[in-house]
Amino acid sequence: MVSIDEDRFEETFREYSAIGATEAGGLHRLTLSAADGEVRDRFVADLEELGLEVRIDELGNVFGRREGTDPDAEPVLIGSHLDSQPYGGRFDGQLGVLTALETLRAFEDASLEHRRPIEIVNWTNEEGSRFKPALMGSGTFVGEFDVEETLARTDADGVTVAEALAEIGYDGDEPCEPREEYHAFLELHVEQGPKLEEEGLSVGVVEGVYGMAWLEATIHGESDHAGPSPMHSRNDALVAAADVVAGVRRLSNRLADDVVTTVGELEVAPGSINVIPSEARFTIDVRSYDDDVVADLVAHAERELENACEREGTDYDLEEIWRIPHTEFSSMVVETALEAAADVGASHRAMVSGAGHDASYLNGLTETAMVFVPSVDGKTHNEAEHTEWADAVEGAKVYAETTERLAE
Amino acid sequence: MVSIDEDRFEETFREYSAIGATEAGGLHRLTLSAADGEVRDRFVADLEELGLEVRIDELGNVFGRREGTDPDAEPVLIGSHLDSQPYGGRFDGQLGVLTALETLRAFEDASLEHRRPIEIVNWTNEEGSRFKPALMGSGTFVGEFDVEETLARTDADGVTVAEALAEIGYDGDEPCEPREEYHAFLELHVEQGPKLEEEGLSVGVVEGVYGMAWLEATIHGESDHAGPSPMHSRNDALVAAADVVAGVRRLSNRLADDVVTTVGELEVAPGSINVIPSEARFTIDVRSYDDDVVADLVAHAERELENACEREGTDYDLEEIWRIPHTEFSSMVVETALEAAADVGASHRAMVSGAGHDASYLNGLTETAMVFVPSVDGKTHNEAEHTEWADAVEGAKVYAETTERLAE
Repeated sequence: MVSIDEDRFEETFREYSAIGATEAGGLHRLTLSAADGEVRDRFVADLEELGLEVRIDELGNVFGRREGTDPDAEPVLIGSHLDSQPYGGRFDGQLGVLTALETLRAFEDASLEHRRPIEIVNWTNEEGSRFKPALMGSGTFVGEFDVEETLARTDADGVTVAEALAEIGYDGDEPCEPREEYHAFLELHVEQGPKLEEEGLSVGVVEGVYGMAWLEATIHGESDHAGPSPMHSRNDALVAAADVVAGVRRLSNRLADDVVTTVGELEVAPGSINVIPSEARFTIDVRSYDDDVVADLVAHAERELENACEREGTDYDLEEIWRIPHTEFSSMVVETALEAAADVGASHRAMVSGAGHDASYLNGLTETAMVFVPSVDGKTHNEAEHTEWADAVEGAKVYAETTERLAE
Repeated sequence: MVSIDEDRFEETFREYSAIGATEAGGLHRLTLSAADGEVRDRFVADLEELGLEVRIDELGNVFGRREGTDPDAEPVLIGSHLDSQPYGGRFDGQLGVLTALETLRAFEDASLEHRRPIEIVNWTNEEGSRFKPALMGSGTFVGEFDVEETLARTDADGVTVAEALAEIGYDGDEPCEPREEYHAFLELHVEQGPKLEEEGLSVGVVEGVYGMAWLEATIHGESDHAGPSPMHSRNDALVAAADVVAGVRRLSNRLADDVVTTVGELEVAPGSINVIPSEARFTIDVRSYDDDVVADLVAHAERELENACEREGTDYDLEEIWRIPHTEFSSMVVETALEAAADVGASHRAMVSGAGHDASYLNGLTETAMVFVPSVDGKTHNEAEHTEWADAVEGAKVYAETTERLAE
């Protein structure tokens, strides 16, 4: 069991957090921005200082390889992502990369010999805020997205991924694909929810990820003047949409106790103070670990839409824009992490994740699991995002120990 | 009792409607646009052909004066507006101006002598779509708005009212103010609601306009990730806002039977499919003919906001951005119009208007009332806006007769 250097770990986290820092204590480090280029340069320098063989693929994913005693053994892959949400937090993604870095530094300190090679990775564009889709680097790596199509994706200013990569010098030569079989992938991430904190635990070993569906609904009513139009003559798209928002919220009380439902976008047309809305477009996000429950939620959401539109005399379109079944992570990696957590003495539990991660895609390629550390108040994707450092340290201990065992 | 020329009236309406016509049969003739310039040129030519003395004030309001037998008598002012909503209808405003024009043509045909001078007017920017505020020309004329401030108002492209007036050559020399006392103002307009049609009537004599209040509410919740955030931990600004939208709709079933309530704008931040909304900003429009009821509606709307925010654990700001008491039009003009309607044999009723009009401002200056003709299905502010021509003719007869009596 190697020891991580808590001071070095914290100092490194502080230094990385200064790159793209916001005044409110968060990070604004959009993928492939200048700040992302700067933090990547620092990351590559740190890998080289550790004597790792660094390679960069055509999507900008950065790998560093520490050889094992058996160079032909399938390597263990560890890491996460260094990009952030717009005005996001310092922990989401970055903590996972730096935990993997500290793990390899601790191995180097201890001159640890392990049979399997270990590769550390920083995945490009996990967040998907600047370029769609999210999980771009890992998704392309596992073959989910076509390389050329992905490189041609544009941001809001029309800049392509390829141009943005070249701008910061991360348009690598390696093909974006596995060059060999991997033994396992392990990712540490902040929970982004309140469960660990509510239970007073430092570590979650993630057995899987919720299934989910994304719907886009448009309600068609009739615009009319807010003054002379009596209530009985109205077909108000927003009134119907508000009814659906309330109905979608109520769905979370049904079907299963892990259900979460969210309406995150809502736009009204024509959007004038004295005009009855003719159109309301909104999204519905429904999730559960049970794929059948997700299917039921989609059906119930459509029923809410039907009922609301019948009450208001409006029509609707409903499109399912994404559906992904739940992910079950590798029981081998999960068991290894649970045993490691017990052996290092970290308070922990097994759990599932409500959010997708790079690990979700890697799970299709190799044996995969994740380690979670708590998010204070469950807050994430904002500058107030925080993890108590003592929990980050506990997570790093579990992560290093799990990596060591996977690499044997 | 003079006779209007129904064919000429309809032909003129058709010709004016071709200026700024949309493919769907509506009008896109934003105030002070090239199309507005073109229709004004036609209007001025028609006034000059009638031998009227034309003058244009510094806000672009166009007046044409037909002298009376007593040139020192206070004139009767008649007219409406030629500008339209974006992709609006052909009747809103334009029908009122052309009814006034047909009235003066019929007087000319009949060589009618009347004691009082009659002035026809086209008010600049009734709609308020391009430049705020609405009712700009009439409001400035009666002293509600400062001339210099109004001329400095800008559209979305930063063009000032003064620049737009000069661009189409309607930056007139006359001060924008009454140069003498008026005896009365009479405006014909489409109802913009369904009441006349529902009762099978051709003409409404408008006794007043609803009082109203405009509120702007902002609900402050907390953004968080839609996946890992359990429902019990959420403070979803949109869920609270939807609750208020439903509550505001229910208010219309209370307090008085003429109440109308509308939420016309609603914007959500950050507006991302997988992020719980942290902010929802929306407007509330409440109206009744009874000013006390409007005050009660404002209080009830705030209570809805309080209750919804308490349920969802969110905060709110509420601002009253406009409140205007109900308008009671001149009983002298209303009585004159009711008698004229009875005498020309038009099916009619007295009624109140849910919407404000140029006449609302003129009412503060002189004895004022309005004549309404039906809107098919109550539709307005869109290209499908329609008034049966037989009703327009009935309205014109009542309007001409009322004008004749007012000018005696």
